Amino acid sequence: MKYGKLYGVGVGPGATDLITLRAVNVLNSVDVIGIPKSSDKMRPFAWRICSPIVRENKNQEKLFLHFPMTKDHKILIPAWDKAFKEIGARLEAGKNVAFITQGDPSVYSSWMYLLEEASDRWPGINIEIVPAVSSVTAIPAILQTPLADGREQFCVVPATYGIDDLPGLCDQFDTIILTKVGKMIPQLIEILEELKLIKNATYVSYGTTENQTVIKDLKSIKTDNCDYFSMVQISIRRRRGALRGKNLAGENRD
Amino acid sequence: MKYGKLYGVGVGPGATDLITLRAVNVLNSVDVIGIPKSSDKMRPFAWRICSPIVRENKNQEKLFLHFPMTKDHKILIPAWDKAFKEIGARLEAGKNVAFITQGDPSVYSSWMYLLEEASDRWPGINIEIVPAVSSVTAIPAILQTPLADGREQFCVVPATYGIDDLPGLCDQFDTIILTKVGKMIPQLIEILEELKLIKNATYVSYGTTENQTVIKDLKSIKTDNCDYFSMVQISIRRRRGALRGKNLAGENRD
Repeated sequence: MKYGKLYGVGVGPGATDLITLRAVNVLNSVDVIGIPKSSDKMRPFAWRICSPIVRENKNQEKLFLHFPMTKDHKILIPAWDKAFKEIGARLEAGKNVAFITQGDPSVYSSWMYLLEEASDRWPGINIEIVPAVSSVTAIPAILQTPLADGREQFCVVPATYGIDDLPGLCDQFDTIILTKVGKMIPQLIEILEELKLIKNATYVSYGTTENQTVIKDLKSIKTDNCDYFSMVQISIRRRRGALRGKNLAGENRD
Repeated sequence: MKYGKLYGVGVGPGATDLITLRAVNVLNSVDVIGIPKSSDKMRPFAWRICSPIVRENKNQEKLFLHFPMTKDHKILIPAWDKAFKEIGARLEAGKNVAFITQGDPSVYSSWMYLLEEASDRWPGINIEIVPAVSSVTAIPAILQTPLADGREQFCVVPATYGIDDLPGLCDQFDTIILTKVGKMIPQLIEILEELKLIKNATYVSYGTTENQTVIKDLKSIKTDNCDYFSMVQISIRRRRGALRGKNLAGENRD
C-alpha cells in the first residue's frame, strides 16, 4: 500500500515566532494537521503556538486527537490506539499528515509513541521529523545563562523520576535542566538547600509565552501554582571559562 | 551612554529553513550583522546558513570578526578583544548588532564569551538571545531516534574533554550526545566496544546540510576524515517505554 507521508513537527517552546521556516512550510502544505489535546476544556498548547502561521485552507483537515493526561494504562492505551487509527485512516487514503508537538519532537513528546508504532502499523511509510527550538535551550536564552561552553557538560532529567539522582548529577554536571518540576518543588528545595545550591537554581514556567514566569527564589513558589510547563535550570558551572586565559576568566557571577 | 541593542542569534544546525521566524526578523532589521569567522579560506558556516534569508540592504553592515580556531590564549585573547572592540564601536554609535552563531547560542557557542563581557564593556546594555534549533535535537530527528521519553534522561558532553566519563554516563543515561568527536573516534570505539555499546552509537557530521553524513558503523570511519561539525548519539534507553502498558511496550529495536 502507498501511504501518505507522516511528519512529526515541532512548533517550539511557546512563542509563535520561534517556529522554523520548515515547520511553517510543512504545516501549510499537508492535507491533515494532527493536533494532540489532553482535555476538551483547554485549547491544545501546540495548536495555540502554531495556528497563527497556518493559512486559511478549507481543504486542510485539522484533526484533534485525544491524548489523556494520565499514567493509567487502561485509559492511555485505548485512547492512543484510537488516535493512531484516525491518523492511519488518512495515511491509507494517501494523505500527508503532520502531527504537531510543543517543543522539539525528540524531547519528551507524544510524537515518539506514534513514531514507535508507525512502521508496524503502516509498513514502508515515509516519515520526516522537523526539529524545533526546545525549551532546553529556550530557558537558558531567557535567563541569559548558557547551558555549556568549552569543557562543560549538561544533562536533562525529569524531576518526577530523577530527583533522587540530583546530588550525583550536581557533582558531575555544569548545568542540569529539570523538566516537569511542578509537584516536586518542595522536595527539590530541600535537596538543593542541603547541597548549598539553592541560589544556583531558577524556575521558569511557560517560557517564551505571554504567561512566562521566572522565579529566582524557589522558596517563594507556591506549590499549588506550579505548572506542567515548568522547568528548573541549575547552573553550577565549575568548569566555566576553563578554555579562557586567566586574565579574562572572571569569577562565577551568576 | 545609550548603546544599541545586542542580539545573540542562533541560526540553527545547518539547513537554512531550520531558522526561526524571529531570527529572520532580527537579521533583517538590525544595523549590523556580526559574523564570526575562523579563517580567510572558508566562508563562515553560520553566515552560509543564514545569508539566503538576509535581504539585500546596503544600509546594513556585514561585520566579519576573526575568531581563530586555537586553544592558545596568546592568540585568542587579543583576537577576541579586537572583535569585541569592533562590535563596541557600533553599539556606542547607537547601532543594533546581531551576533550570529551556528546552532543555538547557549550550547558551546562563541556568543557566550561576548555575552559574558558585554555588561562590563557596555554597562546597562540591552541584550536579547534568540534561541535556535540545536544539533542536539536535529541529530535525533535525522536518526529518528528520540533523545528521551517518560522517565528517560539525556546528557551532552564534549568528547574532547569528557570521554573518560563515558562508562559512568552510559550507566546513568538513556541517551548521550557527544560533541566535537572528530579526533576522538579511535578512543571512543575502544571504550564503546568494552562497554558492548558500539552498536548503540551513530556518527553524524554536518547534520541537516547538503554534506550530511550518517555512519552507523563507527569502525568504518577514517580518522583523518573526521570533522569539527560531528557528533555521536549513543542510544541505550534502558528506561524506554517505562510509562507504557506492557502490551504495547516493544523490545529495544534500535
